[in-house]
Amino acid sequence: MAGSPMETTASCDITFAMLADPEAAREVCFGKEGVLAGIGRGRGYIDMSTVDDETSRVIAASVAKAGGRFLEAPVSGTKKPAEDGSLIILAAGDHSLYEEATPAFEKMGKKTAYLGDVGQGARTKLIINMIMCGMLTAFCEGLALGRKSGIDCHQLLEILASGSIANPMFAGKGPMLLKGEFPTSFPLKHMQKDLRLAIKLGDEVGQPLPCAATNNETFKRARSAGYADEDVSAVFKVIT
Amino acid sequence: MAGSPMETTASCDITFAMLADPEAAREVCFGKEGVLAGIGRGRGYIDMSTVDDETSRVIAASVAKAGGRFLEAPVSGTKKPAEDGSLIILAAGDHSLYEEATPAFEKMGKKTAYLGDVGQGARTKLIINMIMCGMLTAFCEGLALGRKSGIDCHQLLEILASGSIANPMFAGKGPMLLKGEFPTSFPLKHMQKDLRLAIKLGDEVGQPLPCAATNNETFKRARSAGYADEDVSAVFKVIT
Amino acid sequence: MAGSPMETTASCDITFAMLADPEAAREVCFGKEGVLAGIGRGRGYIDMSTVDDETSRVIAASVAKAGGRFLEAPVSGTKKPAEDGSLIILAAGDHSLYEEATPAFEKMGKKTAYLGDVGQGARTKLIINMIMCGMLTAFCEGLALGRKSGIDCHQLLEILASGSIANPMFAGKGPMLLKGEFPTSFPLKHMQKDLRLAIKLGDEVGQPLPCAATNNETFKRARSAGYADEDVSAVFKVIT
Amino acid sequence: MAGSPMETTASCDITFAMLADPEAAREVCFGKEGVLAGIGRGRGYIDMSTVDDETSRVIAASVAKAGGRFLEAPVSGTKKPAEDGSLIILAAGDHSLYEEATPAFEKMGKKTAYLGDVGQGARTKLIINMIMCGMLTAFCEGLALGRKSGIDCHQLLEILASGSIANPMFAGKGPMLLKGEFPTSFPLKHMQKDLRLAIKLGDEVGQPLPCAATNNETFKRARSAGYADEDVSAVFKVIT
Repeated sequence: MAGSPMETTASCDITFAMLADPEAAREVCFGKEGVLAGIGRGRGYIDMSTVDDETSRVIAASVAKAGGRFLEAPVSGTKKPAEDGSLIILAAGDHSLYEEATPAFEKMGKKTAYLGDVGQGARTKLIINMIMCGMLTAFCEGLALGRKSGIDCHQLLEILASGSIANPMFAGKGPMLLKGEFPTSFPLKHMQKDLRLAIKLGDEVGQPLPCAATNNETFKRARSAGYADEDVSAVFKVIT
Repeated sequence: MAGSPMETTASCDITFAMLADPEAAREVCFGKEGVLAGIGRGRGYIDMSTVDDETSRVIAASVAKAGGRFLEAPVSGTKKPAEDGSLIILAAGDHSLYEEATPAFEKMGKKTAYLGDVGQGARTKLIINMIMCGMLTAFCEGLALGRKSGIDCHQLLEILASGSIANPMFAGKGPMLLKGEFPTSFPLKHMQKDLRLAIKLGDEVGQPLPCAATNNETFKRARSAGYADEDVSAVFKVIT
Repeated sequence: MAGSPMETTASCDITFAMLADPEAAREVCFGKEGVLAGIGRGRGYIDMSTVDDETSRVIAASVAKAGGRFLEAPVSGTKKPAEDGSLIILAAGDHSLYEEATPAFEKMGKKTAYLGDVGQGARTKLIINMIMCGMLTAFCEGLALGRKSGIDCHQLLEILASGSIANPMFAGKGPMLLKGEFPTSFPLKHMQKDLRLAIKLGDEVGQPLPCAATNNETFKRARSAGYADEDVSAVFKVIT
Repeated sequence: MAGSPMETTASCDITFAMLADPEAAREVCFGKEGVLAGIGRGRGYIDMSTVDDETSRVIAASVAKAGGRFLEAPVSGTKKPAEDGSLIILAAGDHSLYEEATPAFEKMGKKTAYLGDVGQGARTKLIINMIMCGMLTAFCEGLALGRKSGIDCHQLLEILASGSIANPMFAGKGPMLLKGEFPTSFPLKHMQKDLRLAIKLGDEVGQPLPCAATNNETFKRARSAGYADEDVSAVFKVIT
């Protein structure tokens, strides 16, 4: 227990932070009595927040300039995996720090990957979320089509659960979709933001993404329809 | 072992057929010494072929008129599941026949579902394949984006395998996609046909399917590019 | 003035028909005292109805077998152009008949084109309508975006009218869109049907059409939302 | 003729600038002997360059702070309209300056519109270009479908030119598309950038744009295929 980020970084070999948003991440790093003020030569700072590229790079450069070592380590997984210690940790940045932090990561998550330079952790997360949105949209379209075709959708869920596309997300969200319940595990507006950023990344590296782009518009429609703060699965409401 | 479909249906309580296409299904049913010539009052005929609605309904009506009972029972799963007895059987039609055939279905597949009137088996299969196409397209777009962004895609596969969207299809096809190998398990042109039929079903029942429609055009692009007879996963070649 | 199609074709060099739908077209041709009963060697029958390929081909073959000559000649244009004699006539089939009918076509329309074998008239019409849907959807999205961005859309219409994309459809439908008025000139459900058929044609000839496919889903959404019988421009209601 | 932007603004009631890109626009404004150094109380500065929102706002604020008046006035139209004096001028900002500049705008363009606060000129241009992309994509898909269906596309162009969707862009670019010639009037990469920015604007104001988003991916595909510096109509090469 310390009185400030500065005290923490000044007294620990490795400091872990997990903050709400880029503004908080910057404040904790650059603020008065912030991370930079305390970090000394060789000590490590690991930011597990989900922030934009720019923020991550600015923090990384400042920590390095102050003599410290930096790792971005956003996580994939929501509330339940966090409670269960089954998060997936997407680390990128200083490799020696990654190695030293691995035992700690192993307590927090069930899977840790080192992905290269700062930025690759965040990018990997965007790609995973983009694939997830594609699966969720296809799933919702399938259930909507089944329902309108007079098919028993609970049976459809069972069939899906037996085949080669069975996955925990369908198993978890399927019954709730059919009940019309969307308790927020990951807010739709955050997922749409990630989808937008993934498409932007595609624009930068020259990768067309017609499926993701079409899905993004469906998620935007859900956001505009008033479901921004509901669970990402509430996209079902504008599909049916 | 019998000399003709007629002999078979005349001497068995239940006859199972699994044929290449609608033409074969019609020939075996309506041809000289065909199914209809032998089926008697109360005997059962189960067609496990994947055929169009029209063919299935015509066969169903003719079998009923001849006094027999009919079940359509297309399967979900390809070569490997067939060999392993792990197919999923999507039955629809005469319910008493379904009950009598269940022990046999249990030998052939790992999961059997009774879906209602003739046509619902075929429709369920279309919906499953539509969801599968959506997942595969999202997966390919994600891998393509990862590759162009300098991310190690084998690592990306491992991360996907640990999370809530992990599924046997990604696990099976992922490494082959990265190697650029597309051994035909299910031909791309057949999948594109199913996608087209699912969208047509959506048109009939009034269900818009923007994700599936966009993906269908990507699959058509792959078909036009010469990959019609390769595995469905060869869609990756027009995405990258 | 004649008492039946038979009397008409029996007494005229060229008979023109413009009927409501494929069923009517078949009835007038094949019915008792129908076109076929009266048409003799060398006389001409021109069907200006909008029908499907199959119907057009069956009528063409039957007329030819009866010794007559056939032309399909669907028109592009709605009520107003019909009243003004400014329809566009898309003829295909017997070329000698086309030449003989040209003076009559010139009275009915402002532009007549001979497009080749029976079927090419209908296909050309589908392509024109597909382009029209693309333009209308882009226009609606642009107006919706303008409105939400606080731009004066009447001014936007004026600007569009001055530039290289100015066209009669924008000029005619624009002000009505902004007023929220959709008096039926061409019913949305018919346009969506043409869009669907154009995409089907693309499937047959191996032409991917991502823009048309995405728009088709937007039109389906408008149809499902209850705007099937309103003007095609009512698609605006599901875009805003 | 003056030696620097400073000299120009110091000696003219209104200074017009039309520069290559945002960097040039900033340099001319903020550089040593730049616009700001010379502009005095009440004098006007009109930037006709196409720049991003941020750049436009920063310049506007600085000019206002220096006591001057500012107008953004991007133009719609390319080389030929510029030579012919038929540009469309999309002005936004200080209204008194707009009124004083109108006689000059009337010499440069055939149509001038005052669109409100700084930013609305640029936004209007994005919307026009988004609609243009939609029309061009639909047109290319139509021609590609016509060609694969065996339709004479020169005839198709003539038919389009007679109907309600006839427009100067189709008339100008159509024959070149069919010849496979794409002389650069407006580079594809700039159009794709505008499309991306229009979609971003839609994201900000909550307007889904499925047609534009799908087209954007087609333009990105054209850009990635190596046609970035060719005319925007070269998108035809990845559609056929």
